[in-house]
Amino acid sequence: MADKKLVEEITSRDENFTQWYTDVVRKAELMEYSSIKGFMIYKPNGYAIWENIQKKLDGMFKETGVENVYLPVLIPESLLEKEKDHVKGFAPEVAWVTQGGGNQLTERLCVRPTSETLFCELFRNNCHTYRDLPMVYNQWCSVVRWEKTTRPFLRSSEFLWQEGHTIHATAEEAKERTLQMLNIYADFCEKELAIPVIKGQKTDKEKFAGAEATYTIETMMHDGKSLQSGTSHNFGDGFAKAYGVQYTGADNKLHSVYQTSWGVSTRLIGALIMVHGDDSGLVLPPHIAPVQVMIIPILQKKPEVMEACMKVKEALRAAGISVKVDDSDKRPGFKYAEEEMRGIPLRIEIGPKDIEKGQCVLVRRDNREKSFAALDEVAVKAAEVLEQEQQDMFERAKAFRDSHIYDAHDYDEFKDIINNKPGMVRAMWCGDQACEERIKEDTTATSRCMPFEQENISDRCVCCGKPAKKLVIWGKAY
Amino acid sequence: MADKKLVEEITSRDENFTQWYTDVVRKAELMEYSSIKGFMIYKPNGYAIWENIQKKLDGMFKETGVENVYLPVLIPESLLEKEKDHVKGFAPEVAWVTQGGGNQLTERLCVRPTSETLFCELFRNNCHTYRDLPMVYNQWCSVVRWEKTTRPFLRSSEFLWQEGHTIHATAEEAKERTLQMLNIYADFCEKELAIPVIKGQKTDKEKFAGAEATYTIETMMHDGKSLQSGTSHNFGDGFAKAYGVQYTGADNKLHSVYQTSWGVSTRLIGALIMVHGDDSGLVLPPHIAPVQVMIIPILQKKPEVMEACMKVKEALRAAGISVKVDDSDKRPGFKYAEEEMRGIPLRIEIGPKDIEKGQCVLVRRDNREKSFAALDEVAVKAAEVLEQEQQDMFERAKAFRDSHIYDAHDYDEFKDIINNKPGMVRAMWCGDQACEERIKEDTTATSRCMPFEQENISDRCVCCGKPAKKLVIWGKAY
Repeated sequence: MADKKLVEEITSRDENFTQWYTDVVRKAELMEYSSIKGFMIYKPNGYAIWENIQKKLDGMFKETGVENVYLPVLIPESLLEKEKDHVKGFAPEVAWVTQGGGNQLTERLCVRPTSETLFCELFRNNCHTYRDLPMVYNQWCSVVRWEKTTRPFLRSSEFLWQEGHTIHATAEEAKERTLQMLNIYADFCEKELAIPVIKGQKTDKEKFAGAEATYTIETMMHDGKSLQSGTSHNFGDGFAKAYGVQYTGADNKLHSVYQTSWGVSTRLIGALIMVHGDDSGLVLPPHIAPVQVMIIPILQKKPEVMEACMKVKEALRAAGISVKVDDSDKRPGFKYAEEEMRGIPLRIEIGPKDIEKGQCVLVRRDNREKSFAALDEVAVKAAEVLEQEQQDMFERAKAFRDSHIYDAHDYDEFKDIINNKPGMVRAMWCGDQACEERIKEDTTATSRCMPFEQENISDRCVCCGKPAKKLVIWGKAY
Repeated sequence: MADKKLVEEITSRDENFTQWYTDVVRKAELMEYSSIKGFMIYKPNGYAIWENIQKKLDGMFKETGVENVYLPVLIPESLLEKEKDHVKGFAPEVAWVTQGGGNQLTERLCVRPTSETLFCELFRNNCHTYRDLPMVYNQWCSVVRWEKTTRPFLRSSEFLWQEGHTIHATAEEAKERTLQMLNIYADFCEKELAIPVIKGQKTDKEKFAGAEATYTIETMMHDGKSLQSGTSHNFGDGFAKAYGVQYTGADNKLHSVYQTSWGVSTRLIGALIMVHGDDSGLVLPPHIAPVQVMIIPILQKKPEVMEACMKVKEALRAAGISVKVDDSDKRPGFKYAEEEMRGIPLRIEIGPKDIEKGQCVLVRRDNREKSFAALDEVAVKAAEVLEQEQQDMFERAKAFRDSHIYDAHDYDEFKDIINNKPGMVRAMWCGDQACEERIKEDTTATSRCMPFEQENISDRCVCCGKPAKKLVIWGKAY
């Protein structure tokens, strides 16, 4: 009964999604708040997910020629101020260092909210001729943006991310790189995180401060809300001109470079929780789970049980599966509840009766499906089950999302859907920012993106009725 | 001749070691300074070395049960102040955030100079019973300490490091962990970085602020100076008492925990440069080199040359060797000079004549030794040569170090050696801090450590002549 109770400490997902989210974060021991308001501590279970995200994404980046660098945590105020839209976007939310080494500083330094300005300086100092191009850099770091209201992984005053920054000789090459990285994010989300994405372009209202175009991958959480899960920005030559990044071309003339930046953050952990989690806690896709298999001995005091568990563990490890044995002195039922809360994709139970039959029990986390495997074939079987679970989780998330996207043809329909049905709305837009603002005011929904897959579902703007220019995905967002 | 000139831009190591070091850092494109005094930018070549250090060390840590976490970049002043020795050690060199989100803060927050205090808070909030112990955590991050004079990798106002923090139920377990991590550092330095170390304990004067005991690995640079390359601290229960970290034991009583911390930093890159570098630039040990082999085509316009190069590249990659082909339009001699400056351990030259003979040329970076390999056996041969180079580099560094350690039996001899012979001095010490201070004042040398391998080379303290207690290694240090 203690097992049951343990699980019951998580609020039901459909009853109160916000409380459910907080409960899962806490019970799975992913993070906790520090004594500074809005600053998170990533505990081992949470940070291990980020490490796996880093490892996989970093490999994908490097395959395309990305090189990692590290730039200072502090940025002088004067450097931040050089690009006007940019400083306007970030200045209100930065933290300022005003004292250092016992002295008042002559210039304020901000703790980096993003590093565009530092990269511009680096590029200016190192880019001389066309032979130096492209420069394709990335940085894994933390950034600080003072937030008034915070939520674990989704919005906090410090968060972890990667920020890629590149410069190119031509506008075309910059645009290509912007889209290439967006596609990497999309592939990563779908194949590793099992989260389906919509790729599209942000409207001018929603794009990054100082960018010419911002591309995004938008995902749908289980409560129907949208989460912007990764963005890729094409800066054109705006930053380059503001910071004087130029090169001598093959034509012996000076040219501005074309610049991009792109990033994903620990928000992705929030997405993992809210797309896949259930009333028993976290559910992690096998490809990203730090521990893929938990072996739980039944009657572990019997030596043959622990022996069989260790043998299975070694077989799985040899097959490249990340595996642990829970040999603590808790009861098996308690252990089940615990590894379910933590979202471990596969549980293997081994008891004396199983050993007699030369088998063990496999239980999937996502759907509790039970299967059996011969002890000497368990590694192959476990790999198959994990791969199936990964695919099923993606298909399930995609089916859920697709069944929660609605078309709206006029404003009444739009408002009805957005107010009564959790999910996203597809509707046509005239291109006027006033309509975006009105929709936001009336419904709190925002334009998530102009999806790459355009379709004409009406000739009229859903808001003002004027001729429509673009299909837009609308939604309430985190 | 242009090749020759390129190399000559590096000052001779024996002529001016300081300038040589700066030249190597610049020519190998490892780092550059940002516009904030003392804050470094890690460029791709430099950061890639740090990534390899991270990857290997992190694997070694995790084998011993270490879990990674991430704690905030900012620390409230009140938290820092709780341990008196600690705050005294760090307060003068921290950077203070006083404004955030447009407001003056009610309490100053420092950019972390180290995270002991945050870990204490984390431990206090999460350690309840003996079942929660041990907690064996580590964090990879940057720290800020305002420095007046800085040198690339050796001393900068921001640097990258890892800081391990652990708590244990008993003093013995804490001591064991402290030594275990020191041994990992020592093994890593010797086996991966090819840098021989001396393991020992710091004197009270040189130990970490707030620690009961500090252990260290000391290394010798090519100019004979010492570099403290990694430290491991046993805090006893001092911090735990200051921060109230307690647990309920199996005896149902409250106990304080015993704590350790341990760290290495980007200083290790400085050590790599100063131990192995030569007048042509950086020399990287194969185990840690981001690019282990550079293939240089001779007469690369001939299609069969590039074809052979790509084939060799694929064979090496398949064998797990990190390899690149330099197919830029520079001349081969220029390329040789460039990859030598960057310290790439092995160069493979492939030209039409080699292809006719079915072979290629291998040139080691450390001693320029040339050898030949059949094109279809090059992967095996390259792996052998790299492994031999790794061993030779360690042996060479060890022979150099051992021939620059001198015994001193009285103070005149001590001063004569320390003033005239670059290297370390072994001498006996009475245990009195006054002698350490006098030696430092007279010679600028400091006690590097009391080596674990003790020996009695005299009955008298080398400074005051009183009865000796410990053999100490002395040296001028970075």
